[in-house]
Amino acid sequence: MSVRYAEDLCPGTERDLGSYRLTRNELIEFAERWDPQSFHVDASASGYFGDVIASGAHTLAIFQRLSVLSDESHWAVIAGVGLRDVRFLAPVRPDVELRGRSRVESVDLEPERRRGLVTKRGALFAGDTQVLDLTSAAYVRMRAAR
Amino acid sequence: MSVRYAEDLCPGTERDLGSYRLTRNELIEFAERWDPQSFHVDASASGYFGDVIASGAHTLAIFQRLSVLSDESHWAVIAGVGLRDVRFLAPVRPDVELRGRSRVESVDLEPERRRGLVTKRGALFAGDTQVLDLTSAAYVRMRAAR
Repeated sequence: MSVRYAEDLCPGTERDLGSYRLTRNELIEFAERWDPQSFHVDASASGYFGDVIASGAHTLAIFQRLSVLSDESHWAVIAGVGLRDVRFLAPVRPDVELRGRSRVESVDLEPERRRGLVTKRGALFAGDTQVLDLTSAAYVRMRAAR
Repeated sequence: MSVRYAEDLCPGTERDLGSYRLTRNELIEFAERWDPQSFHVDASASGYFGDVIASGAHTLAIFQRLSVLSDESHWAVIAGVGLRDVRFLAPVRPDVELRGRSRVESVDLEPERRRGLVTKRGALFAGDTQVLDLTSAAYVRMRAAR
């Protein structure tokens, strides 16, 4: 697939990002490293949910992996700018299949800087349950001026 | 340190979260797994910044680790609710020492549910340069009713 520049991206384009199987071992290992709270790492200590649940940092990393592998690896991304309205809508439990979706929300070209600010809405689902919703923004290169 | 419940948390409390040394190897390994875009994984391919820069997902994971190890491991957290206004303010380069800070912004008690919604503002710095700013929200248990 050829490189896609800011001018090639269209608001409204939706994409299925594919799926990722999150095992119990991976859930706990990620949390031990990055988010060692008891309800992420210790099934016996987890009161509220009855089992460990995934760290939000892990959920975001999984979304990013799906997004990049299916889509953004072909975009001429300069760098991410930020995220807003990241909502962990439901607990992410072990041994679940997570499926991602994204939609381009806006493309604001800055021709004098040969870049565009691209905003995407993203989501992760476990079955029919949405577990993550977020909006992300990144600068993407425009084609070289002719 | 004893467990801290929602009633124990006060808006305005600031905390130094300590620091984390991010090596080049770790930066690239994390990105290869979670965010395999060329400017995160391939120093020779990285045009704009002249070197690899850390994935935003990695930057967030480092902030979460610092936050939990210094602070939230003593909080009676039920679960994170979300993040807003996550801004990647400057590129995070390899072999840098990152220092975290946080401030409790608001505590909204829900006594009938024995929990409070706690909002924090967080930041990461590389030297004097702020590289990350975010606001996070989590539910924290209140003490059992007497």
